[in-house]
Amino acid sequence: MTLADPRSLRALRRRIASGDSTPERERAATRERAVAGDPAIGAFVRFAEPLPEGSAPSGPLAGVSIGVKDIFDTADLATEHGSPIYRDARPRADAPLVAAARLAGASVLGKTATTEFAFLQPCATRNPHDTERTPGGSSSGSAAAVAAGFVEGALGTQTAGSVIRPAAFCGVAGLKPSFRLLPTTGAKPFAPTLDTAGLFAAGVRDVATLAAALSRRADLDIGEEEVSASGLVVGLYRSSIDDRAEAAMHSAWDDAARILEQGGARLADIREPPELANAREAQPTLQLFEGAQSLLGERMRHPELLSPLLCEALESGGAIEPASYDRARRTARIGRRAATALFERCDILLLPSAIGAAPRTLQSTGDPLFNRLWTLTGNPCVNVPGFRDADGMPLGLSVVARFGRDALTLRAGAVLEELVAQR
Amino acid sequence: MTLADPRSLRALRRRIASGDSTPERERAATRERAVAGDPAIGAFVRFAEPLPEGSAPSGPLAGVSIGVKDIFDTADLATEHGSPIYRDARPRADAPLVAAARLAGASVLGKTATTEFAFLQPCATRNPHDTERTPGGSSSGSAAAVAAGFVEGALGTQTAGSVIRPAAFCGVAGLKPSFRLLPTTGAKPFAPTLDTAGLFAAGVRDVATLAAALSRRADLDIGEEEVSASGLVVGLYRSSIDDRAEAAMHSAWDDAARILEQGGARLADIREPPELANAREAQPTLQLFEGAQSLLGERMRHPELLSPLLCEALESGGAIEPASYDRARRTARIGRRAATALFERCDILLLPSAIGAAPRTLQSTGDPLFNRLWTLTGNPCVNVPGFRDADGMPLGLSVVARFGRDALTLRAGAVLEELVAQR
Repeated sequence: MTLADPRSLRALRRRIASGDSTPERERAATRERAVAGDPAIGAFVRFAEPLPEGSAPSGPLAGVSIGVKDIFDTADLATEHGSPIYRDARPRADAPLVAAARLAGASVLGKTATTEFAFLQPCATRNPHDTERTPGGSSSGSAAAVAAGFVEGALGTQTAGSVIRPAAFCGVAGLKPSFRLLPTTGAKPFAPTLDTAGLFAAGVRDVATLAAALSRRADLDIGEEEVSASGLVVGLYRSSIDDRAEAAMHSAWDDAARILEQGGARLADIREPPELANAREAQPTLQLFEGAQSLLGERMRHPELLSPLLCEALESGGAIEPASYDRARRTARIGRRAATALFERCDILLLPSAIGAAPRTLQSTGDPLFNRLWTLTGNPCVNVPGFRDADGMPLGLSVVARFGRDALTLRAGAVLEELVAQR
Repeated sequence: MTLADPRSLRALRRRIASGDSTPERERAATRERAVAGDPAIGAFVRFAEPLPEGSAPSGPLAGVSIGVKDIFDTADLATEHGSPIYRDARPRADAPLVAAARLAGASVLGKTATTEFAFLQPCATRNPHDTERTPGGSSSGSAAAVAAGFVEGALGTQTAGSVIRPAAFCGVAGLKPSFRLLPTTGAKPFAPTLDTAGLFAAGVRDVATLAAALSRRADLDIGEEEVSASGLVVGLYRSSIDDRAEAAMHSAWDDAARILEQGGARLADIREPPELANAREAQPTLQLFEGAQSLLGERMRHPELLSPLLCEALESGGAIEPASYDRARRTARIGRRAATALFERCDILLLPSAIGAAPRTLQSTGDPLFNRLWTLTGNPCVNVPGFRDADGMPLGLSVVARFGRDALTLRAGAVLEELVAQR
């Protein structure tokens, strides 16, 4: 039995606009669902107090409840980063992205579970589609909260695959925008050259509306605009890691390509250039070197409060020589240029969001293999939900576009999502 | 009467190595000087407790006391960012750069005064060379503490000119290394694409030793190595802002060039390419757009606790359209490539660190005009002390090298410093 039942942010806005509902009623309904349903999922680590009677935030997100990954500072709620080192730690101000959400009228329903410092040690969250499976990580609670319909939107971060992978495993839309389109300030850094703030919502148009409201970039909002695959050149990104994807994922990928082609797109095979294969291999060097640096204070003061998994990773990161790190940075720079060049041959790339569906375990959050590269290059990436494996578990596909073309990424994602829904 | 009397980090190491002193004795002497002398300067906002009896940190910086700009997290000391919003705020862990300093054996003597959130509103620090003058900012206390000999080293940050300018005004060596050579994690972000951690010490070899110890990059340490200008191609960086520099600064610049030439260097006139003029003009757009974003949470929750100067800047930053910001980012990327190309024609650039000597005021921290560009491009930059105006006030010159050539920057800076001292 699935507990997945996402709530569309845009449907909420339509209910309010038509007078069928009010922001207060929407906030209350969401809270009720979340409080009742979360014990089975564990998406939240703490709930905020309801807004005081009579407070009526306005703006494009009025009535929308969001979940905030517990790696983002919140002034009204402890921010624990998934670690006992930060038990009850209370920041003085909201992280900019949280402040932007409130400014746009959204209310923060609560803080969502994160793996320890957004690395790989799982938190207690379960996948709403099958509670014996991981929701993915590290933005585990944010993806699960949206999938379970506890909130209409959620904030996450990605350093390797922490937005796109949980979005895929939980069957919701996830946006990892172009590097620094959304501020990561006030989110605890792990690897600053990679850390990227991202968003979750029920569907691609929902996440686009959320992104537009949080970034003051109206062009990201798709609104009611009709979108079409006609004339779109879709690059099927072929690389040496493809054989790691499961058969069900390959089928979904083939299906998606065929559906887009039937919708008027032109397909192109894009073979991974060596610069990008090298860049993917360099990503862990950047992540671990910077991670060991970022958490040095915690390692020195509270080593006993870190998980063995994280300790080991940070130790290996601390053993990387600065010269190797510098080489990895150069490889990354070369990779970014190579990524830009890909889009001379196509408008978007289509590729798996993960190896397959969510693994049947709560001891691992799955593998970010297919996400690492695009976090490093900084290209915008959206997870398109709507595909399923034989067990009915969600499979996600990624649409990637040129750096700065977030609006195109979202529109192409919406096209695919809508064509799949119509089939 | 000058209160300037910097203590050399390398001289301290020699005293300890020779057995003439001990780390304990050095730490005690520094503390005594600082506690006695700081009321006249105001470099520190708080002192740490002395290390407990019997604790003996070892490492390359054993015995060295450092000042930490109060924008870096410290687990044993409040971190207030120069703002009443953070009164008594106490982080759970040290910022990585602070942790690295302790790991290398240094002890933190205290937190040094910063302008409000490292922007332009002055703090109470005075210039040790003339207490009626600004020490520069935003790393005001760090530069003044080193100049007054209260510590042998100090940590700072630079978003426009906050390391190089106060180093120049206080007559000490300042290093703004290549972007991300030192971690800014755990320092409150203002503009993440610009924020750069930097260092202060008495002389260039001192700051090189400090940089090597904090970054695990032995090649940065100059040690006793003989350095020479022979064969060095020195680019005199000529741009449209040069006429803003005062006559005394032009003299110092000319002197420095002649001294280097007499030492065997070859001089080359490098005219600023338009890409770099554009990049300098784009820097404030990046700084203010990102600053308005970074401090949105503080602006929403505690507007009454921000200075009018900062409020106005953040308001103007908040009014910048995302499309203008995106254009500024592109201009910056183009500028970075143009900066790299300059070093096909020379080994280092030589240019003013500031318009002139420290202005005779405590109401302003001076103008970062000559520093903005190199913060944006991320090139390594060292302030070389040793020049004076007619009043005996320090004038600083900047040596800039290609991205990643921090070791060269430091060596060239040491050459100039030593040639000036010998004249």
